[in-house]
Amino acid sequence: MDIATVNALPFEDFVNLLGNVVEKCPIITAAVWSRRPFLNFTALEAAINEFIDDLPESGKEGILRCHPDLAGRDLQSGTLTRESREEQAGAGMDALNSADASRMTRLNEEYKERFGFSFVICARMNDKANILRQLSERCQNERALERARGIEEVKKICRLRLQDLVRTDAPNKL
Amino acid sequence: MDIATVNALPFEDFVNLLGNVVEKCPIITAAVWSRRPFLNFTALEAAINEFIDDLPESGKEGILRCHPDLAGRDLQSGTLTRESREEQAGAGMDALNSADASRMTRLNEEYKERFGFSFVICARMNDKANILRQLSERCQNERALERARGIEEVKKICRLRLQDLVRTDAPNKL
Repeated sequence: MDIATVNALPFEDFVNLLGNVVEKCPIITAAVWSRRPFLNFTALEAAINEFIDDLPESGKEGILRCHPDLAGRDLQSGTLTRESREEQAGAGMDALNSADASRMTRLNEEYKERFGFSFVICARMNDKANILRQLSERCQNERALERARGIEEVKKICRLRLQDLVRTDAPNKL
Repeated sequence: MDIATVNALPFEDFVNLLGNVVEKCPIITAAVWSRRPFLNFTALEAAINEFIDDLPESGKEGILRCHPDLAGRDLQSGTLTRESREEQAGAGMDALNSADASRMTRLNEEYKERFGFSFVICARMNDKANILRQLSERCQNERALERARGIEEVKKICRLRLQDLVRTDAPNKL
């Protein structure tokens, strides 16, 4: 889909097609529709990121809390969103050996206990070893830093999901 | 569930149980978890309403755009959330005669065309005749007024959904 097509979408189609670029937060996509027309992919992405940045800290934590654990119960029970399922499978999260699976569970719980939100990392830009290492390291961070770190990852995930849906070239004639 | 139970919920359970009190906006519930413990039902409701009020206007429009049409395609295709399905059925939206159904469709389209967001009304506090009358009347409002009106209705829906889940009596000892 090119940006001209995106700009012509009624809000219902816009939200249906792009509503999960931030996991389980269609309100963000729905809000950003107010900013159309978008000059290009980058402008659309920037509008999403600005909306996120303008949220209060509780709202940013809210975004993180809407993300499922990596290799967690949503993956086990088949209740991940399609996008999350594909991303987690791509990073091997659905095929961990039992030692890695236990370690992931333990670290996820430790992380949530410490920070009060979920560990978020862009699975498509990391492999299993990397994810486990970062989860372990990031458990040591301070809360405010880690909230910002999580939101950075949300934006990376969002960019890749958007790239799956919207062409990044071909600037639109406004 | 009493407020003490609500206050003791880990965020994942809190979001799973209360995440749709604002339709398709679990980020709001997830954000409000940061504000626990809640003194009582009213404090929980107030925290949700404050989060909504603090959103930029685009965010409020985003909430409205996450709401399905009354007697619209989600009802026809069975893709409403459980809460919306029950609320719409309660107001007779699933049993309109063909004249009322056509009128509802036409007015919904007119409303969305005019305002760029969905018509939201608390179906549990209105019957079919009332809903059709208000939809018709509210199409004449100014945009900013109508956005505020829609958000008022979101809050009424939220209160009733919360009341289905959380006891309103029994103040908690903090």
